[in-house]
Amino acid sequence: MPPAKRRRVTISDVAALAGVSKGAVSRSFNGAERLPASTVKRIHDAADQLGWRPNAAARAIKGAPAHTIGFVLQRDPDLLGLDPFFPLFLAGLERVLSQNAYSITIRFVSDATEEARCYKDWVAEGRVDAFIVSDLRDDDPRFAMLDDLGSAAVVIGEPPADVHRPSVFHTSDECIEEVLEGWITRGHTRIAHVMGDPNLQHARRRRDVWARVLERHGLSTDALAVGGFTEPGSAEATRELLTAAERPTAIFYANDIMAAAGMRVMSELGLQTGSDVAVFGFDGIPLGPYLSPPLATIACDYIELGSIAGQVLLEELAGRPADPERRTLPARFVERASYGADAAS
Amino acid sequence: MPPAKRRRVTISDVAALAGVSKGAVSRSFNGAERLPASTVKRIHDAADQLGWRPNAAARAIKGAPAHTIGFVLQRDPDLLGLDPFFPLFLAGLERVLSQNAYSITIRFVSDATEEARCYKDWVAEGRVDAFIVSDLRDDDPRFAMLDDLGSAAVVIGEPPADVHRPSVFHTSDECIEEVLEGWITRGHTRIAHVMGDPNLQHARRRRDVWARVLERHGLSTDALAVGGFTEPGSAEATRELLTAAERPTAIFYANDIMAAAGMRVMSELGLQTGSDVAVFGFDGIPLGPYLSPPLATIACDYIELGSIAGQVLLEELAGRPADPERRTLPARFVERASYGADAAS
Repeated sequence: MPPAKRRRVTISDVAALAGVSKGAVSRSFNGAERLPASTVKRIHDAADQLGWRPNAAARAIKGAPAHTIGFVLQRDPDLLGLDPFFPLFLAGLERVLSQNAYSITIRFVSDATEEARCYKDWVAEGRVDAFIVSDLRDDDPRFAMLDDLGSAAVVIGEPPADVHRPSVFHTSDECIEEVLEGWITRGHTRIAHVMGDPNLQHARRRRDVWARVLERHGLSTDALAVGGFTEPGSAEATRELLTAAERPTAIFYANDIMAAAGMRVMSELGLQTGSDVAVFGFDGIPLGPYLSPPLATIACDYIELGSIAGQVLLEELAGRPADPERRTLPARFVERASYGADAAS
Repeated sequence: MPPAKRRRVTISDVAALAGVSKGAVSRSFNGAERLPASTVKRIHDAADQLGWRPNAAARAIKGAPAHTIGFVLQRDPDLLGLDPFFPLFLAGLERVLSQNAYSITIRFVSDATEEARCYKDWVAEGRVDAFIVSDLRDDDPRFAMLDDLGSAAVVIGEPPADVHRPSVFHTSDECIEEVLEGWITRGHTRIAHVMGDPNLQHARRRRDVWARVLERHGLSTDALAVGGFTEPGSAEATRELLTAAERPTAIFYANDIMAAAGMRVMSELGLQTGSDVAVFGFDGIPLGPYLSPPLATIACDYIELGSIAGQVLLEELAGRPADPERRTLPARFVERASYGADAAS
């Protein structure tokens, strides 16, 4: 067991050592300009010597910053392990924040009620200076909530047009369109999509782009199955698509994990990925090049996304308006063998 | 821009609505027993109605819990994206903590000085109730620091024998030994190891187990190369091992990412993983089954590890001593095609 706590050094000890009043110690740490520099130095030396520093709680009462960013996630923590976004985004964010001595406080909540309570509590209690808002939903209640709380935030994703909050997101529509057009040029006429969780905006958006391209060429959009962003979901969706009467010759997966699971189903069905069924995914996971065949993908730079989000937050907290308000990063196609050469049929 | 802040509801508003003094409001939230239950209820109803709750900062000054766990990591945030431990551990931890309305505050630091300052600041400022201590180092300064600070903590990894802190870790020595013995039984005599970062205890431990098994059978431990837990490091190490005069017929990689990178080098050199060179890794990454051939591995349950760590922390914070002080989880072998059948030479 740890030894009993030592008596805590207090502001009185610092005041006594520096030969000043407690008020002077307090003012010297609150950036008050009324003390001579030599006095401030004497007080800070005394504080260093005693290992004392002003209590964050006391500062928070006075409205001082918490030097902490809040990140409330309404999702099942168990899905974290498979999602390349989260650790890479956090890495990029921390790269910027840690250099500025900012911390990140994370909380997983199970529903919108718990989410709202968490936002309110953290602001009321002075725990965080700003929020990261990701996983945007329809009629997302968080924008009104943040306005009510008067809190700073950066949005990860494209906010509705009437929301004026600094945001950072990847643009991938054009890239997906081009890559699908590439398949059509090569003669593919039956192109399937394994969709992510339909409750998430980005899942629906990828599906819509896919449908738009096919419709533009008068191709059927029947070959659509929901994989829900998970491996088992994709395995089932892929099996359904590949055992249907009209088998697709190409499948666009809404993420790489689903593509990997789908490729295994192809192999189990005796189909060659790339030649029998062309495939590309989305995300650009680090292990993509090691799959067999290597996985073609629409790659996002989640580290850069996090890093820009961190910069935007620091600027916002420094009182500088975000310019531009919406910052975008282009997704890019990484062509690998799974994309195939010519249509199989 | 968000609208201007509304006037903040204060303790005076709650006191006025409930018809009591501010002191009574304060006592009713600090668990003081001196108020009649009916008064407490009246005060809390008033607080709910006004959307007021006691300021965490004010509570922290009085020594109330922050309901937050601190996690200080001295590593390059960029390595997060490839490390299966971090997101899965966090998922397991959050599964337990979020149910108890606890948050996690994360900070990446670049050296031991910054690390020590972070620990001290968070405790002095009442930001966290306890710490998670992972990535154990030699003569780790954090144990003495935690004792000095009188702070609660859970250790992820096996602490030195003289450290009495609750800890949770995987035991994998026996499992690695058995799997290496399996290769020796199948006739392998030249078994290589691609090691992780030699500065990390668990990297050295895996190498030591490998060396011990080989020495027990009078086999050479020359085929050792450092991959540093990274893909490029492993690619170089693998190339070095496989182009040496005496080529190994089997390689144990200290993690799965390095095994995946090594398997690609094999393919580039025209060698068949599994038959020409048998391989197993460590971690049990979700994509292991989708590699070609599927990757054999010593799998750890990092979600379970995080979940147990969360339980241990909550028990510790509730004042119950950890029993047992050291909790272990067995790693387990997942045999897949890369492990091979019989020795190739």
